[in-house]
Amino acid sequence: MIVNERILVSTLLVAFDLGGTFIFALSGATAGVKHRLDLFGVLVLSFAAGNSGGIARDVMIGAVPPAAISDWRYIAVSILAGLVTFYRYGIINRLSSPVLVFDAAGLALFAVSGTGKALAFHAGPVAATLLGMLTGIGGGMVRDLLVREIPAVLRTELYAVAALTAAVVVVAGRMLHFPSAASAVAGAVLCFGLRTMAMRRGWQLPIARSLKQPDPETNDRSDG
Amino acid sequence: MIVNERILVSTLLVAFDLGGTFIFALSGATAGVKHRLDLFGVLVLSFAAGNSGGIARDVMIGAVPPAAISDWRYIAVSILAGLVTFYRYGIINRLSSPVLVFDAAGLALFAVSGTGKALAFHAGPVAATLLGMLTGIGGGMVRDLLVREIPAVLRTELYAVAALTAAVVVVAGRMLHFPSAASAVAGAVLCFGLRTMAMRRGWQLPIARSLKQPDPETNDRSDG
Amino acid sequence: MIVNERILVSTLLVAFDLGGTFIFALSGATAGVKHRLDLFGVLVLSFAAGNSGGIARDVMIGAVPPAAISDWRYIAVSILAGLVTFYRYGIINRLSSPVLVFDAAGLALFAVSGTGKALAFHAGPVAATLLGMLTGIGGGMVRDLLVREIPAVLRTELYAVAALTAAVVVVAGRMLHFPSAASAVAGAVLCFGLRTMAMRRGWQLPIARSLKQPDPETNDRSDG
Repeated sequence: MIVNERILVSTLLVAFDLGGTFIFALSGATAGVKHRLDLFGVLVLSFAAGNSGGIARDVMIGAVPPAAISDWRYIAVSILAGLVTFYRYGIINRLSSPVLVFDAAGLALFAVSGTGKALAFHAGPVAATLLGMLTGIGGGMVRDLLVREIPAVLRTELYAVAALTAAVVVVAGRMLHFPSAASAVAGAVLCFGLRTMAMRRGWQLPIARSLKQPDPETNDRSDG
Repeated sequence: MIVNERILVSTLLVAFDLGGTFIFALSGATAGVKHRLDLFGVLVLSFAAGNSGGIARDVMIGAVPPAAISDWRYIAVSILAGLVTFYRYGIINRLSSPVLVFDAAGLALFAVSGTGKALAFHAGPVAATLLGMLTGIGGGMVRDLLVREIPAVLRTELYAVAALTAAVVVVAGRMLHFPSAASAVAGAVLCFGLRTMAMRRGWQLPIARSLKQPDPETNDRSDG
Repeated sequence: MIVNERILVSTLLVAFDLGGTFIFALSGATAGVKHRLDLFGVLVLSFAAGNSGGIARDVMIGAVPPAAISDWRYIAVSILAGLVTFYRYGIINRLSSPVLVFDAAGLALFAVSGTGKALAFHAGPVAATLLGMLTGIGGGMVRDLLVREIPAVLRTELYAVAALTAAVVVVAGRMLHFPSAASAVAGAVLCFGLRTMAMRRGWQLPIARSLKQPDPETNDRSDG
């Protein structure tokens, strides 16, 4: 039974990880098409968006070579997302509101799988929490850097907070000896719910009053 | 006595490292407030500015997971700096000239602690020197990249040179069997002095004549 | 004889790696002079362009500290390229068309040496291929990010594809037990040929039709 649960959990984590990779690869490919990259540039961007967070996590826990480059499924999933976006951009673009929902799902999946993998490699609770959050937000940050935008994660509604919540749930579940599959699902659901609610209701964290008050609209997009 | 000196040195290096983290986290948070990020974005940027150099160093010497994510003090210090800046931005901003002096202190502390840690992990003299410099300048580079500016370190008066000087002093001290605490302090003082003198007197390294001579003022800030 | 062949191959790979480092360091230094960085900024950029790909590869295969910082020859070669560009910018600039050809040579050398090193550290075939490509394109990506441009590799004619081709040739040669030196040379020649032909004939990969068709000229350079 214990063996079965372990297999279940590890299968669940890999499924979460591959699902997150696919969703973020879609977002990377969409950014690439918008910036008029050629086919291979789009594929590079979809790979980078889907896997940068996981690669950073694996390097930091010493799991080298990172799964993203040594396990063919991550590459296959990234290329698939890139090709779909490239050849069916009209469809993906029309889905942009659903895509935001998918993106929330990807964030939830990655935050949970990242935390779980860090714990499996004996990272401490603080490190595992941070690595889970990093897995969730890393891909989007690299995607935005490569097309020269200030990472959306730094300014979007409760994005990183949602990832952090999922990571905390998984780590707390482990410390309280809850079944891993249960806390994985709970963390993912909570993160997804928090993020989609924040989008729908426009929940925001406070912004500090900077001294010269520029028009934020103009300021944010002056050279974007 | 030798044990005592070792403890002293290792305590000194950690204190230097935490001090540098706090100072660079302040600079990251300040950049975040200026770009009107929300609270969590400011915290992410203060963590990135305070710890990216150290994380890169730790990954390259195989000290994984990096101290910045496994030792809670680095996270606590980064969050503290972020919160202070966020809720007391007026004060931090009025201190901007002192902050430049603090920044020089942070650079000095990081260059010394980075070199010392690399030596402790058996990096060779060349690698330790480069890693010390990288620890000093890495955080500022990542901070600038995340808010889409050309890293200041690439164009500021003798910034990287000061870090390099500190690293060379620490490595040379080790090779000549000087007491580690003495060369740590000497390297930090030299780096700090060089950087603050360069700021005060406007010391600059030469700039190559590029062929079409654009107005540097305009050119540098055309889209910043 | 086998020992001799091994020595030959490993010498060949190091020579390829150092050659690639020199060429990419030239391109980094050129970008630095164009952006009017001071001498040290130019050296940092030439080091980053010449070595980022190799550092990323070494970190991912666990070869720490990376050769780029522990082997003095990489640093020496990078500094040499930076100094030549800084003090003889006129000459380098006049050579810009030859430099593009050199750049193709650097890409070929790096893709081959990166794949070879990854195989030597027991990376699987997929990982070795991706790491070879990453070694080839990584330096140019970091160079462009540091001076705030969308990485040329994401939009230049068959750039990454050429690197990928070289990596595939080296991995396939290994799997078919061909002599390593032969497949190294074959991969490099193929990559170089593909890239220079693409430049000369303007070969392009397709670009997706994005929905609102902006003028690509304007769009690409609106804030560059």
